[in-house]
Amino acid sequence: MLLKEYLETKKKIVDRALEEYLPKRGGFSSEISESMRYTLFAGGKRIRPVLCMASAETVGGSADTVLPVACAIEMIHTYSLIHDDLPLMDNDDYRRGKPSNHKVFGEGVAVLAGDALLTEAFCLLSGKAPGISPEKSLAIIHEISAAAGFRGMIGGQVADLRAEGKEVNMETVDYIHTHKTEALITVSIRAGAIAAGTDEEDLNALSEYGRKTGLAFQIADDILDIESCREILGKDTGSDEGSKKATYPSLIGLEESREETRRLVEDALSDISRFDEKAEPLRMIARFIAERKS
Amino acid sequence: MLLKEYLETKKKIVDRALEEYLPKRGGFSSEISESMRYTLFAGGKRIRPVLCMASAETVGGSADTVLPVACAIEMIHTYSLIHDDLPLMDNDDYRRGKPSNHKVFGEGVAVLAGDALLTEAFCLLSGKAPGISPEKSLAIIHEISAAAGFRGMIGGQVADLRAEGKEVNMETVDYIHTHKTEALITVSIRAGAIAAGTDEEDLNALSEYGRKTGLAFQIADDILDIESCREILGKDTGSDEGSKKATYPSLIGLEESREETRRLVEDALSDISRFDEKAEPLRMIARFIAERKS
Repeated sequence: MLLKEYLETKKKIVDRALEEYLPKRGGFSSEISESMRYTLFAGGKRIRPVLCMASAETVGGSADTVLPVACAIEMIHTYSLIHDDLPLMDNDDYRRGKPSNHKVFGEGVAVLAGDALLTEAFCLLSGKAPGISPEKSLAIIHEISAAAGFRGMIGGQVADLRAEGKEVNMETVDYIHTHKTEALITVSIRAGAIAAGTDEEDLNALSEYGRKTGLAFQIADDILDIESCREILGKDTGSDEGSKKATYPSLIGLEESREETRRLVEDALSDISRFDEKAEPLRMIARFIAERKS
Repeated sequence: MLLKEYLETKKKIVDRALEEYLPKRGGFSSEISESMRYTLFAGGKRIRPVLCMASAETVGGSADTVLPVACAIEMIHTYSLIHDDLPLMDNDDYRRGKPSNHKVFGEGVAVLAGDALLTEAFCLLSGKAPGISPEKSLAIIHEISAAAGFRGMIGGQVADLRAEGKEVNMETVDYIHTHKTEALITVSIRAGAIAAGTDEEDLNALSEYGRKTGLAFQIADDILDIESCREILGKDTGSDEGSKKATYPSLIGLEESREETRRLVEDALSDISRFDEKAEPLRMIARFIAERKS
C-alpha cells in the first residue's frame, strides 16, 4: 500500500463525513455555516483525523467507528487556524493559498465561526457514536478538551503571541511547539486508540509516537516555512522569520533542524515497533513528516 | 426563604467551585488564566448556574450534584461576554463597571481567554461528576453544545452583529433574543433537571419555563439598558439605542415591553405550577426577572 493512496482514501472519507455533519444552513442566515465551511473545506491535508483513524486501526479497531472523533478534532484544528489568522493574532491574509476567513467574512463572523467549530466539535463528540461506549466518549471529550485548552493548545498560542518580535530561547520554542501543535496531534492518536479499545501499554507507546511525530511535524513546518515560496505552501512564507517568530531553524539552523526531525521520527518508529503490520500507515505517516515538501 | 438570601447562598457556592476548577497558573505564563479569571470573577449574578441548581432541586435532586454542570455553563456565558465585547463585535469598553477583558489583556489574549473558557467548560462537563451517569453527562454535553453553537447562541450573535445599524423587524429581534440569550438559559434549566434525573413531562414543563423566563430576562435587559445609568448597571448604557440595536423597547416601546415581560413571567409561572414548594426558587427568580432593577 502506498501512503499517497492511503492518505487520499482516508481524506475522502473525512471530507464526506464533515460534509454530512455540517449543514449548509445554520440559523437565521447561512453566513455562519458558510464561514465555518469555507476554512473547513479549504484543502487541509486532514493529518489529524487520518492519524486518529490509523491509530484505531493499529490497535485492531475500525476507522469507521472513530470517524466522528476524527472529524471533531479536524473542526478544532480548523477553529484554531481561523482565530490564529486574525489581525489581532498572527495577521495572516492567506491560508492554503486562499484569502483567510476574516478576509472573506469579516473579523466578527470569523471569530464566531471559530467559536462555532469548537462548539460543534463537542456536539459531535457527544452525539450518537455506534461502537463507542458513553464512558469512552466522555474520556475522549475530557482528553481532547484538556489538550485543546489553556493547559495545551491555547497555552501554546498565548506563548506564541507573547514571543512575537522577541528573542526567544529553546525552552520557549519547545513550549510553543509541544503545546500549540503537538498536544492536538498526540490526542488525535490517543483518542483513536481509546475509541477503538486498547490497553495502557499500547496507549503509552502510541502517545510517545504522537509526541515525537507531533514535534517533528512542527519543526518540518518551520523548515518548510523558510524553504517554500508562497505558491507552493499557500500562505505567506517567511512571515515567521520576518516577525522573529519562535522556530527551530532560527535557533539551531536549518541543517540541525532537519537532523532533529529525522531523530524524532526514528524514535517515534521505534516506539511503535511493538505493533504488527496494522501500524504500517502510522509508520508511513511518520516517514512522510520527516521528508515532507508541502 | 427570601430570594436575596437564596441567590447569595448559591452564588457563593458557584464562586467557590469556579475558584477551585480554574487554577491560578495555566501554562507557560499565568496570563491566560488571569485573563480567564478576570471576567469570570468580575461580579456576575450567576443567574444561569443558579437556575441550573434550582431546576435540579425542583425535580427532587441536589444542587451539589449539578454544580460542575452549573459552573461549566457560567464559563460558556463568560466566554460569550468576552468575545462579544471585542472591538470587532460590540466594541464595549466596560463590562459590569470594569474595563472589558481586551482593554486589560489585549485583544489577542481576550480571544484566547474566551476560547479557553469554552474549552474548559467541556473539560469540566466530561470530568468526574459523582452522581451523574456517563450517559447523562453525554446527553448534557450534547444539549449544551447545541444550545451554545451556531444553531443557538452563536447564531443569535451573528444575527445581532448583522442587525447593527439597521432597521430591524420583530422577527429578527425575536430570533436574536431567543438564540443569543434564551437558548443558554433554557439549557441551564434543562441540564440541571437531566443531571438530577427527571421524566419527560417535568422536563418539558421546565423547558417552557426556561424559554419564557429567558426571553423575559432579555427584554428586561433591553429595558434596563435604556433606563439605567452607567453607574448602576456597570456598562455603557444607551449603547444599544445609539447603534440602533435590535431591542424590544425600540420596536414596541417601553410600556409594552414591560407588559410583555410580565406576561411571559406569568406564563412561565403557570408552566411550573405542577411542582411543589421545591420549585419556589424558580418562581422567585421569574418574578425577580420581571421586576429587576439591575
